Amino acid sequence: MISLRNDTFLRALRREPTEYTPIWLMRQAGRYLPEYNATRKRAGSFLALCKSPDLACEVTLQPLARYGLDAAILFSDILTIPDAMGLGLYFVDGEGPKFERPVRDESDVARLAVPDPGAELQYVCDAVATIRTALGGRVPLIGFSGSPWTLACYMVEGGGSDDFRRVKTMLYQRPDLMHRILDVNARAVSLYLRAQIAAGAQAVMLFDSWGGALSDRAFREFSLAYVERVLRELDSQVPVIVFTKGGGLWLEAIAATGCDALGVDWTVDLGAARARVGARCAIQGNLDPMALMASPEKVQAEAIAVLESFGAPGEGYGHVFNLGHGISQHTPPESVSALVEIVHSHSAQMRRLRVSASSL
Amino acid sequence: MISLRNDTFLRALRREPTEYTPIWLMRQAGRYLPEYNATRKRAGSFLALCKSPDLACEVTLQPLARYGLDAAILFSDILTIPDAMGLGLYFVDGEGPKFERPVRDESDVARLAVPDPGAELQYVCDAVATIRTALGGRVPLIGFSGSPWTLACYMVEGGGSDDFRRVKTMLYQRPDLMHRILDVNARAVSLYLRAQIAAGAQAVMLFDSWGGALSDRAFREFSLAYVERVLRELDSQVPVIVFTKGGGLWLEAIAATGCDALGVDWTVDLGAARARVGARCAIQGNLDPMALMASPEKVQAEAIAVLESFGAPGEGYGHVFNLGHGISQHTPPESVSALVEIVHSHSAQMRRLRVSASSL
Repeated sequence: MISLRNDTFLRALRREPTEYTPIWLMRQAGRYLPEYNATRKRAGSFLALCKSPDLACEVTLQPLARYGLDAAILFSDILTIPDAMGLGLYFVDGEGPKFERPVRDESDVARLAVPDPGAELQYVCDAVATIRTALGGRVPLIGFSGSPWTLACYMVEGGGSDDFRRVKTMLYQRPDLMHRILDVNARAVSLYLRAQIAAGAQAVMLFDSWGGALSDRAFREFSLAYVERVLRELDSQVPVIVFTKGGGLWLEAIAATGCDALGVDWTVDLGAARARVGARCAIQGNLDPMALMASPEKVQAEAIAVLESFGAPGEGYGHVFNLGHGISQHTPPESVSALVEIVHSHSAQMRRLRVSASSL
Repeated sequence: MISLRNDTFLRALRREPTEYTPIWLMRQAGRYLPEYNATRKRAGSFLALCKSPDLACEVTLQPLARYGLDAAILFSDILTIPDAMGLGLYFVDGEGPKFERPVRDESDVARLAVPDPGAELQYVCDAVATIRTALGGRVPLIGFSGSPWTLACYMVEGGGSDDFRRVKTMLYQRPDLMHRILDVNARAVSLYLRAQIAAGAQAVMLFDSWGGALSDRAFREFSLAYVERVLRELDSQVPVIVFTKGGGLWLEAIAATGCDALGVDWTVDLGAARARVGARCAIQGNLDPMALMASPEKVQAEAIAVLESFGAPGEGYGHVFNLGHGISQHTPPESVSALVEIVHSHSAQMRRLRVSASSL
């Protein structure tokens, strides 16, 4: 077993002391990088890129070659599970993901089955193993999945949606059908994450990208309950991060699922989040991705404000720096250099000031 | 002066006792009603409909003819102010509002001037007066405006946006320019609402539709500070409702602006909102508009859950029932009948139960 040379990210997730605040970025391997676009072009399509373990490995490592990031994240799509269920994932340029066979009625729901991670999803496990080997212990590798509810949104809508009309019509009119979809999804997600961990993922993240579209009551019944179930069935030996976009009102409830870290978007003040969650979970976030559109000096000022809003972690607290959402394809790559540099240097300085203040 | 026959809505806003929970719906005069579509067709375009006081009056009254709603809201567009500033508002079918001359640089900002409500916006004041007369005291009339930040989003983006890249680039890179736009907008909004009140509006509402797109710090600096300024300059004699979509984390801060009521979207639990805000403000909301896609029985069950989450208003509290966002064009009109009926009957019953419980 190759030992991990930089375990700052894992220690922050476990709320152990770190010399600085670790940073990685959601969608860090992506279209803002010219080298990513070149590999994608070579692959022929986004799906071909996801389905080739070697190419997925190549793009996963690209941002690490440029920046001193403290974690790698598996390059894959959020919709691999429903694709493996046979819904027929495809992409239309500029329109995002779509399904050929969306789940619309009782018979569609009856046909759903949990995919075998060792069969239909073997390519993902292969990518995890390939990336883990290629990393050679440089930084930890994060695996991930969409949450049961978020997968259900795409499965029922048949793609992205502004108003979630189809999936919410089912939720309100036929909650029994929605629960059946979510039951299948929860089993699929826990098996999938388990397989990623077995293949080498050193932390996993659940993206509940559309939890924030639900009412308070519906969130608890249709999203949170299934996140909780995934975590229970997963019974993970590696840290689990749960990110609910737009979930700032529910931090205490999400923390109670037993996750190790809470991902939070930029609407949340990190100091307030820390006070609400206490030492139960580490917190990951939360720079507005659009702050990266400004000049390097402005980017750094915003990053410092995020670090200071959390404060020096101190005993039993953990902060992982990230954006509050995936990085935009329009981001100038030099913004990311400036960001990573200031997060490392400023957070190290905050710790030194804290130590010298406490030794007075 | 014609006396108001149904002042339930105004009493709830003032946190005075009411016999039942009043209800109105954001965008209640809209495309889900066949009679609205007929009038719009006659008008020729959406903008022509907004700019004709008689037709605006006609559509404002349409939902009141069908349903026992407790308030009317001026039919108008949220972007009348930037249109009056000369930015050239136009609509492309299926794409929402656009501006011919968006505000992109220093010289665009320098050209901005506060429109005269008695000149460029006289047609809105005429519509208010026409509707007020036509209502004949049946229910109160609500006037409205977009918030300074929400108007700025459209002005800089030149239309709707998924990521607010242009307006946020300006916010992060040139906060001085952003503050100049917001300064003009705040003066324009307070004069505009003042003119609507002078013309007959009996309550006014500020729609901060895009406040929830901001980080915690940016919300306070670029949205909330200007909402507060509008309220101060308006110095309103009629109740003021502030609705920040996605603003559930900031209810205490919004309540502190001095508004009379807080509009909340469906992610917020009304009981929790009431506990956080206390008796400082009434609360307006918050059924998920997509709940109206279900059958009348399901609609009624969801409406009861919203009423029960707030609880019987009791001394010093006020609840105005509404959706958590504008009604969808896909709403079956019979869902609205079922909703209005159950909100009135169930909320009256809740008050009776409360009285009999307290007299035990």
